[in-house]
Amino acid sequence: MYGLIGKIKTKPGQRDALASILLEATQQMPGCLSYVIAVDPGDGDALWITEVWDSAESHKASLSLPEVKAALMAGRPLISGFGERFETHPVGGFGTRLTQAR
Amino acid sequence: MYGLIGKIKTKPGQRDALASILLEATQQMPGCLSYVIAVDPGDGDALWITEVWDSAESHKASLSLPEVKAALMAGRPLISGFGERFETHPVGGFGTRLTQAR
Repeated sequence: MYGLIGKIKTKPGQRDALASILLEATQQMPGCLSYVIAVDPGDGDALWITEVWDSAESHKASLSLPEVKAALMAGRPLISGFGERFETHPVGGFGTRLTQAR
Repeated sequence: MYGLIGKIKTKPGQRDALASILLEATQQMPGCLSYVIAVDPGDGDALWITEVWDSAESHKASLSLPEVKAALMAGRPLISGFGERFETHPVGGFGTRLTQAR
């Protein structure tokens, strides 16, 4: 499995708009086992994204999906930069789709 | 929802043993929507844990569950320290249990 943990910094007041765009666009991505969008209690202009994929290839391929490309285009003007970013290799965990993938 | 992203540093060679202990102990925690255990491709002695809970209270209560307390006791000697730790407020995302909780 392939995982990403990352922080996106948004322009002032644009956090929830970006969250909505990402929520809509990421519901049906082949190979995606988990995609969680979270706000940061200490930073009103940031989102945390945690992702689990069956492979790095599936993640890479998702960036070419029409709905994902449209979301990236719509979301880009709302983004001011990127914060922490960690790549991981999930080994397992709790949750229906993760369990199915083990 | 309540989320945690954290890195645990393990004593040399103890990473996989700690991952096994955590995997076993975290399968049935009330209020837990997602619990993902991942290795770090750049650090052979570390685990990333990403958690999503229905509330901070459920997370706190989980620390008193017998199986979690036993895992903490068994895992503690394998841990050398803690790295990054971020608290989040998940707003949604992809995955069966997350979807149910929205």
